[in-house]
Amino acid sequence: MRTDLVYGPIQADLARVEQAFGSLKDVDYGPLAQMLELVLAGGGKLLRPALALLAGRFGKYNLDLLVPVAVSVELLHTATLVHDDVIDNATTRRRRPTANSVFHNSTTVMLGDYMFAHAADQIARTGNIQVVRLFSRTLLVMARGEIRQDLTAYDSRQTVRDYLQRIGGKTASLFATACEGGALVCNVPERWTEALRDYGYNFGMAFQIVDDILDFTGDETEMGKPMGSDLMQGTLTLPSLLLIERYPSSNPVEKYCARPSKALLAQAVKMICASDIPRESYDMARSFSRRAKEALVPLPHNADRQTLLDLADSILDRRS
Amino acid sequence: MRTDLVYGPIQADLARVEQAFGSLKDVDYGPLAQMLELVLAGGGKLLRPALALLAGRFGKYNLDLLVPVAVSVELLHTATLVHDDVIDNATTRRRRPTANSVFHNSTTVMLGDYMFAHAADQIARTGNIQVVRLFSRTLLVMARGEIRQDLTAYDSRQTVRDYLQRIGGKTASLFATACEGGALVCNVPERWTEALRDYGYNFGMAFQIVDDILDFTGDETEMGKPMGSDLMQGTLTLPSLLLIERYPSSNPVEKYCARPSKALLAQAVKMICASDIPRESYDMARSFSRRAKEALVPLPHNADRQTLLDLADSILDRRS
Repeated sequence: MRTDLVYGPIQADLARVEQAFGSLKDVDYGPLAQMLELVLAGGGKLLRPALALLAGRFGKYNLDLLVPVAVSVELLHTATLVHDDVIDNATTRRRRPTANSVFHNSTTVMLGDYMFAHAADQIARTGNIQVVRLFSRTLLVMARGEIRQDLTAYDSRQTVRDYLQRIGGKTASLFATACEGGALVCNVPERWTEALRDYGYNFGMAFQIVDDILDFTGDETEMGKPMGSDLMQGTLTLPSLLLIERYPSSNPVEKYCARPSKALLAQAVKMICASDIPRESYDMARSFSRRAKEALVPLPHNADRQTLLDLADSILDRRS
Repeated sequence: MRTDLVYGPIQADLARVEQAFGSLKDVDYGPLAQMLELVLAGGGKLLRPALALLAGRFGKYNLDLLVPVAVSVELLHTATLVHDDVIDNATTRRRRPTANSVFHNSTTVMLGDYMFAHAADQIARTGNIQVVRLFSRTLLVMARGEIRQDLTAYDSRQTVRDYLQRIGGKTASLFATACEGGALVCNVPERWTEALRDYGYNFGMAFQIVDDILDFTGDETEMGKPMGSDLMQGTLTLPSLLLIERYPSSNPVEKYCARPSKALLAQAVKMICASDIPRESYDMARSFSRRAKEALVPLPHNADRQTLLDLADSILDRRS
């Protein structure tokens, strides 16, 4: 587990999540075990599981119920990445080879399905039908967001508003559900549960925006993927859309969408990095981070709340 | 809905399943609605939903709980087909174009995920955590079967036993779950529920074997796909494996696996059709169908039981 994020009171308990997550690799069919070994390898930030556990601290903290919630959230996230990587023909992820670069695309699609099945199985273990419904609805919203992203690839007519709606479904909904799921299984009072969900949603928005900025401005080695990789796939994120807005008459992003080329991609990355757009994008991320913190107002002032506040700040500083 | 199968007492109620299934197409995002229109179009036999409803008749028949079970079962089945077609690059299914032939592969993978999410959402609507767990475990078993099929493609060392294990996971498990799920939500007595599950499993085995025979001997127009399409993809089904067993020294299937060509494929199809292998394969299907019927011994002798018995016979006669 990476330690550049400070999870405060639940840091130690995350080890149990990590252990449960890792134990999914123990299957008796060799080739499958090998595939799981690759995709379930450590190295993730366990950010979503951490939020689930922290949310649970505001109620009757029950790790036996929180671990399956946390594992399910991380599995949904990871399964989505596995399918994303197939779609994008990505070769590395977290500095490791992707499943699709080692196995056939077909096997990798099935592997993603297998992980969705595990996510469903884990969440059913809570025995809480309300949480099960929350998770299935979230997967619907996420899939809809992914489909929307896919269908709008290379479409330079989309707006920042479309983008925010899309990442709300694709990313923020799962952060919101991590918080709400953790709160629900620990019987956190309803008003606090809503506050935590609200926190998670805005946290997720800020997180994704920073992710999309780093795709342009980050360090290739630290990120483990080439710069401008989103645009390369035709995915127009905040920096690309702001560039279109700022330079409507002539910009390399629109040109790239019309006729993709390496030269235009490099030109777009360069132009964005040299402009005010990364700063403006950070301003938007900061605004979502602020909303996340404001959502916590109704919660008691304790170490858990402070950890959530600190996390909302720290995601703005992340480098990869 | 096709009417060559007779569903007896629940025929009329299946219309409600069909309606609920069709209503999933009503989404406010145009392009998604268009995709769903294609993959959720009628024409399926609704065999799995029919089994769920029939199983429910042995308890406190409750259509409000059975419809989501039936819809979920059919969705799981359809989602798997959508992912299968991407993997196989299939262009037609049930005489209609496949989703991947109309949309991008990437969008189609996400569409399958969206349908899995709906399946989870539907099953959660039953409010029955036991049924939710049954379904998530089934999806695990199915995905494992699909992965096994994929990883053993073109592997001519596999045996009939491997094949039976594979189709048990890939196909029969969902038929078993359709029966068990229908029984569980209607509080069918435990011993009968087990009998119905047993029926469903053996029914599913017979069904898949017939499917695999028809892939060689069926009518291309009726089947809506080219003959030998499984072998073409490297999937060794019962007829292929029996050919290897019967002619270990020289057979076109092994040669095709080593070096696929159209000529070897045609030769394999021809040799299988001209041999006793289709009849032997039907014998095996008949034996599973018989086991399915035997499983029903503990059940009361009524019209529902008779429908299940008739169905177990009729799947042996199907032409497509």
